[in-house]
Order: sequence, then structure tokens, then C-alpha cells
Amino acid sequence: MPMIRECIVATIAADGTPHLAPLGLIEHKAGWTIAPFRPSTTLDNLHVVPFATASFTDDVRIFAGCLTGRRDWKLAPALRVRPPRLAVALAHAELAVSAVAEDVRRPRFDCTVLHRATHAPFAGFNRAQAAVIEAAILLSRRHMLPHDAIASEFAALRVRVDKTAGPAEAEAWGWLAAALAG
Amino acid sequence: MPMIRECIVATIAADGTPHLAPLGLIEHKAGWTIAPFRPSTTLDNLHVVPFATASFTDDVRIFAGCLTGRRDWKLAPALRVRPPRLAVALAHAELAVSAVAEDVRRPRFDCTVLHRATHAPFAGFNRAQAAVIEAAILLSRRHMLPHDAIASEFAALRVRVDKTAGPAEAEAWGWLAAALAG
Repeated sequence: MPMIRECIVATIAADGTPHLAPLGLIEHKAGWTIAPFRPSTTLDNLHVVPFATASFTDDVRIFAGCLTGRRDWKLAPALRVRPPRLAVALAHAELAVSAVAEDVRRPRFDCTVLHRATHAPFAGFNRAQAAVIEAAILLSRRHMLPHDAIASEFAALRVRVDKTAGPAEAEAWGWLAAALAG
Repeated sequence: MPMIRECIVATIAADGTPHLAPLGLIEHKAGWTIAPFRPSTTLDNLHVVPFATASFTDDVRIFAGCLTGRRDWKLAPALRVRPPRLAVALAHAELAVSAVAEDVRRPRFDCTVLHRATHAPFAGFNRAQAAVIEAAILLSRRHMLPHDAIASEFAALRVRVDKTAGPAEAEAWGWLAAALAG
């Protein structure tokens, strides 16, 4: 049972255009596996430029934003790879693809970690942030799940947001709720 | 709507005995508010020694452990206050009580931050960690909530643990599930 960490993965196209995607990195002994679904820009980019950054951020607006057409987040250069990292990352890792397992549905890119850096302190668990992450995952599966099931789960998650969110979490929630309703 | 951060608060008794408690710190403009329910050791300790540390850890075994009789976690000295911090904290804050609002049910201790330090990088959101936090909160309310409602919520949370946990999260989940069943 490998551990999965939800983060923002940045890759670049051949021309250097960066792309951000919220993804679950799968832990393995020597590093992390990125397993993007087909079709996706992350997948295309990794085939052309086999490097990425993983930004570990607690700004859940970026997760909700990438799913709702808001992809223009401030970036900062990485140290050892060409894809940039999120400027607001609390920490980030710089990854090099070491092996590719092709798959019709979900290819796997095993990555080694070339560099890690810490930028700001972890400030503890926030239930609203976790609720936004769950809602974002539900929204990303809306083509596979019945709308009523998603709406009912959103209603349960919303209680946690109302109780524990700060302004960033409330804004992220608003984007996801609007996308579900829209 | 103030933001709430789930962390491990350490206080000490008059004789210096440390006490750990999983608590939600309530953000306010000048710092954090600790609002322990009556009766609690944290409450008694803060009345006698008005200082605390807040340890921001992603080791959810400590949250689950404090609720299931496992309170012997490794500590490290703080820099400016007498209560220690968790040795495994990714970051911690050292707090001084600046104002007390007495209440029959839940007194509030407004705290200012005397010192903050970062010890290890945030490694991204993990859905199993968030599920353990939710389950721990449910278990702490088992005297107020119907058992069937808690059991049903545990079953839903368990799916996220099975999908995304590492060994620490699986162990923490096991303690909470055993306590609910026991």
C-alpha cells in the first residue's frame, strides 16, 4: 500500500511553456511515481521533457483553481530542472524521470529526487483544506460519478469548510461549488 | 469565520509534568486561541503555567495515540517557554497566554506567538492523514454522537485510508478503529 501525496506537479512543453496539474504522487523506495491519466498535458510533457517539480503547498486555491480554469499561479525557478515550482510552495522536490511504464489508461513515470527545498513552515492540519482536496478529486471524477452522489458528498464536506476555513479555503470552495452547480 | 489549525498542544503542570493534547487552534489577528473543553488537563495546566507549544506534525499517530491512551511521544525542549514540543514536529510555535475569557463550557486562552521554528519540510496533502484527523475528532465526540453515525462515517473515511495511507497512517487508523469497536 504505497503512500500518496497530493501536490501540484509542474512540467514543461518542448517550447518551455509550463503546465501545472494537481496530482497524487505515489511513493516508492527510490522516489516518487507520477501516473497521469490519458489524455493529459502532464503526460505529453513528460514524454518530451522528462523532468518535473512537485510543489507541496497548503494554498488549496491552486488545486481548486487548476480544476476550474484558473491556472495562472506565480512560479519560481527550480534549481536543477527546467520546470518551475510554485512560488508559494511550503516545500518542493525536483524530479527526473528514471523509468516509464506505458499503459493504455495511466502510464507511470518513476522519478528520482534531484533536489528538495523547504521554503515556509507547515502550519498544521486544516479540515477545510482537506475538504477542498476531497471536493476537487470528486469534481475531477464528475464524468464517472453520479451527480447526486457528488452533490451529497459536497454537502457533507461543506460543514467542515464552514467550521474551519480561512479566506483562501472559502474562496477555493466557492470555485468548486460553482463548477459543480454550473 | 476564523481559521482552525489542528495540532498537538503541549502544556505543563506546576511540577513540570508535560501534557499533550490534539486541539484546534483558532486563528486571531495577533496570534492563536486555545479553547479547551472543561474538564481537561490542558485547561488546568494553562491556569497554572500560562504557556504552551503548538507542534505542527504530519505524524497522525500522535493525534490517534493521544485519544487511545498512547501519550508517550518523544519531546524536545522549546526555546522560550517551559512546555516542550514534539520531537517530530515539522514546525512549532511557542505561545504565551495574553488574555483569558472564562466560560462554563469552554474557556478561551488568547495567545501571542513568542517564537516559531521549522524543522522539516511539508510533504504535501495525504488523504489518509486527513481521514485519521476526521476519525479522531469523531471518536472524541462519541459521548455526544450516535454510534451508528460514527461507524458509518468511519466506513467512508476508511476508503481513503486504504487508498492513500503509508504505514504510520495505517497504524493510527487501526488504533482509532479498535477504540471505536472496543
